[in-house]
Amino acid sequence: MKIDLNCDLGESFGAYKLGLDDQVLPYISSANVACGFHASDPVVMDKTVALAKDAGVAVGAHPGYPDLQGFGRRNMTIPPREVKAMVMYQIGALQAFCTAHGLKLQHVKPHGALYNMAGKDEALAMAVCEAIQAVDDSLILLGLSGSKMLEAADKIGLRSAREVFADRAYEEDGSLVARTKPGAMITDEGEAVARVIRMIREGKVTAVTGKDIPIRADSVCVHGDSPKALAFVQKIRAALTAEQIQIVPLRDIV
Amino acid sequence: MKIDLNCDLGESFGAYKLGLDDQVLPYISSANVACGFHASDPVVMDKTVALAKDAGVAVGAHPGYPDLQGFGRRNMTIPPREVKAMVMYQIGALQAFCTAHGLKLQHVKPHGALYNMAGKDEALAMAVCEAIQAVDDSLILLGLSGSKMLEAADKIGLRSAREVFADRAYEEDGSLVARTKPGAMITDEGEAVARVIRMIREGKVTAVTGKDIPIRADSVCVHGDSPKALAFVQKIRAALTAEQIQIVPLRDIV
Amino acid sequence: MKIDLNCDLGESFGAYKLGLDDQVLPYISSANVACGFHASDPVVMDKTVALAKDAGVAVGAHPGYPDLQGFGRRNMTIPPREVKAMVMYQIGALQAFCTAHGLKLQHVKPHGALYNMAGKDEALAMAVCEAIQAVDDSLILLGLSGSKMLEAADKIGLRSAREVFADRAYEEDGSLVARTKPGAMITDEGEAVARVIRMIREGKVTAVTGKDIPIRADSVCVHGDSPKALAFVQKIRAALTAEQIQIVPLRDIV
Amino acid sequence: MKIDLNCDLGESFGAYKLGLDDQVLPYISSANVACGFHASDPVVMDKTVALAKDAGVAVGAHPGYPDLQGFGRRNMTIPPREVKAMVMYQIGALQAFCTAHGLKLQHVKPHGALYNMAGKDEALAMAVCEAIQAVDDSLILLGLSGSKMLEAADKIGLRSAREVFADRAYEEDGSLVARTKPGAMITDEGEAVARVIRMIREGKVTAVTGKDIPIRADSVCVHGDSPKALAFVQKIRAALTAEQIQIVPLRDIV
Repeated sequence: MKIDLNCDLGESFGAYKLGLDDQVLPYISSANVACGFHASDPVVMDKTVALAKDAGVAVGAHPGYPDLQGFGRRNMTIPPREVKAMVMYQIGALQAFCTAHGLKLQHVKPHGALYNMAGKDEALAMAVCEAIQAVDDSLILLGLSGSKMLEAADKIGLRSAREVFADRAYEEDGSLVARTKPGAMITDEGEAVARVIRMIREGKVTAVTGKDIPIRADSVCVHGDSPKALAFVQKIRAALTAEQIQIVPLRDIV
Repeated sequence: MKIDLNCDLGESFGAYKLGLDDQVLPYISSANVACGFHASDPVVMDKTVALAKDAGVAVGAHPGYPDLQGFGRRNMTIPPREVKAMVMYQIGALQAFCTAHGLKLQHVKPHGALYNMAGKDEALAMAVCEAIQAVDDSLILLGLSGSKMLEAADKIGLRSAREVFADRAYEEDGSLVARTKPGAMITDEGEAVARVIRMIREGKVTAVTGKDIPIRADSVCVHGDSPKALAFVQKIRAALTAEQIQIVPLRDIV
Repeated sequence: MKIDLNCDLGESFGAYKLGLDDQVLPYISSANVACGFHASDPVVMDKTVALAKDAGVAVGAHPGYPDLQGFGRRNMTIPPREVKAMVMYQIGALQAFCTAHGLKLQHVKPHGALYNMAGKDEALAMAVCEAIQAVDDSLILLGLSGSKMLEAADKIGLRSAREVFADRAYEEDGSLVARTKPGAMITDEGEAVARVIRMIREGKVTAVTGKDIPIRADSVCVHGDSPKALAFVQKIRAALTAEQIQIVPLRDIV
Repeated sequence: MKIDLNCDLGESFGAYKLGLDDQVLPYISSANVACGFHASDPVVMDKTVALAKDAGVAVGAHPGYPDLQGFGRRNMTIPPREVKAMVMYQIGALQAFCTAHGLKLQHVKPHGALYNMAGKDEALAMAVCEAIQAVDDSLILLGLSGSKMLEAADKIGLRSAREVFADRAYEEDGSLVARTKPGAMITDEGEAVARVIRMIREGKVTAVTGKDIPIRADSVCVHGDSPKALAFVQKIRAALTAEQIQIVPLRDIV
């Protein structure tokens, strides 16, 4: 039994600091590093890759929409062909720092609105996957379990990994319950941990409707942007370890 | 006798068009492709690399300061360590498109204010050269003949190439006469061509003072941003060919 | 019989030139001046306001989404409250140049995706109108005839003017036929001119379905971004004049 | 005896938070509000002006270089004519929010590198002052006591106010000791307070050389970006009050 714990890192920008990167690194196995479009800058990227390397954490690119002011969380209608170029650009930029630090980039996980939109739109999903494959076909796409992105990766023969969320409720079709709906968030930490363990052990989760649905988990998304988030990462790591579930980077899973 | 003709390409941005890229490509041997900081965007970069490949022109990265509004021509006081990260970022981003198009990036030529400042400042020059080497130590630095950048490249064992200007006057120390001074520009096209041929054949140029000085030329900078510039590229190419001077990419020279 | 001819101006940015501003100014009565978010910069804004003043053309603000790379044409999901602040910001910025040149800002016409989205979404429409009113309640909103923006203006007591398009087909409900649909564009210039004259004289236009629909026109949108567009502006101006229809700024109409 | 306490506010941007604005507001009399070039965005500006109004604090514009990544602290060589337009733009943008909240903009204090460069360069200083005057000639320029900016304001008849620093050492000519030099910072808080009181009472300060020099103080710059800075503001306010020195906005002083 193995699982990856992934966390968004390197989201500071210039004088603006965000995230407790150095504190969360000891607990995770894969880092999604922002690439300068929705967050970060070259100096932050360099520092983040160095930190991840020192902590023995695998590095992935975390490309987003070109929207620093909106932190990449605003939907933007950009043609797939342009999205493809944007994703290629950001992967390449991060690769430069990986190369300099003697690391090989492990994966690509789209950020925010791009993650959500490409998870539901076939053409965007394909654009993201083709971008990854064009730059380095040994990279792993990390996308929402059951999403269009994973389908697109399969279609073109790109390695992919399925991400699950500990703190989010699921619809019966495996999609996330929209944040605006009641019950969207799993606020009880014990319940969140138990759900993740069941996803890994049994491949099942209870949907918001009460019905059990199948789900496959290669990686759990955790956060390092607040002391509370940090405490939860420690808790989930301890629980997984107690359950004899190994925490390893994506490349040792898929 | 060999020389490279290099030209800045891919300087459009979004809805804004700049340069006669497709028209100048048949006449040059190396293209300096803007990387999104002072000009260009991912879509333009993708298109430009494809155009260069089709034309059989070698591709170099043309990193600049993060100053789209000033087209990278404004001096900015940025610490060398940050400049290094910015240059790495931009090289990596362009490499992604080269990889996707099956090209190997040939060289790096800093743009505008970065070119000028790093040409005179040892620490900045070293930052640029270390950035290049960190990302790919087989890349060639293209810098002003006689500048600090070439010295820095030598110091760390980075391949480098010497750029000369057909339309600019030189001081006795080999630096360019500042544009604000009288006589800074060589406006007579015949004279400009003759000067370049002499630089290549004899390794000499007449400084603005009238004294002959030594100069070494691996590459001549030409422009493709106006019909007049384009006509000059055709003229200089014809003259070089008539003189039995071969026009080849940098990698066949240094 | 009076009509306003409005045109988007001041869309250059830094080294990037766009539009034949000085050539189109003699033919129009109102200029929509870009405010630095989707196009333009402070230097361009200053120059454009000066040009408009010299030509005796009324000046309006042309606020857009913060998306220079997409020229403000990409839909972005931004909460109305944030859109309101963005519009206020851009109006204020342009007012500074109007004040400096001794002009009073006449109107506000949202640009591109903001124009389209606020034309259909009540909350966005209200955000735009409230922004205008908050900064200067004597300003005129210029919006698509029949759109949500005009309704919102009416609701809060903001002066508004109805814009029509010479080169676009209309649905029966008065909305524009989407550009992706066949017949969306009126390509015959004579027909385009005749349609505009009928809109002004009779308050009617033939919808894409063939049915006549009512339409009210205070201002016709023209373009100055190509020689062809320029020729059409001259043509429509001549035709209107021949029809004894006066071309005057918005403030003399609504 | 009167003095103004000014503080830079509204420096957050999008998801990035900076400064303890609401905590420092009760202790200051004038706020320098960032205008979106080196920091801030329209939403933050709106919120900041509202906060300042509620606290009864006078609002000034804090224009900077267009350099979000460098927080406006990097020197940029921009022609005075362009700097003038940039400053006009930023003042106008902030005025929109002041108007909306029923406030009158009180002053303009350039930020960071612009403050420093315009403090020493006559043409830049004149560009800043002319920009202010062009937008609203009743505004007050707030600049370093003894700097070129104050001279320029005098020359064109613009109201101005002299700023002093509690935590910085002065050269004999009244300029600030460069941060890179030993003794540049006054680290003892008691000493810092005592120096400010002497500047106000006696119009004198002891230069880094040990010699007393004349200095005139209309406003003291304080900071609200850390708990330590906040504690110092409270301390200096208490000390000034104990000394019967009234803390009032700039407009009640100059």
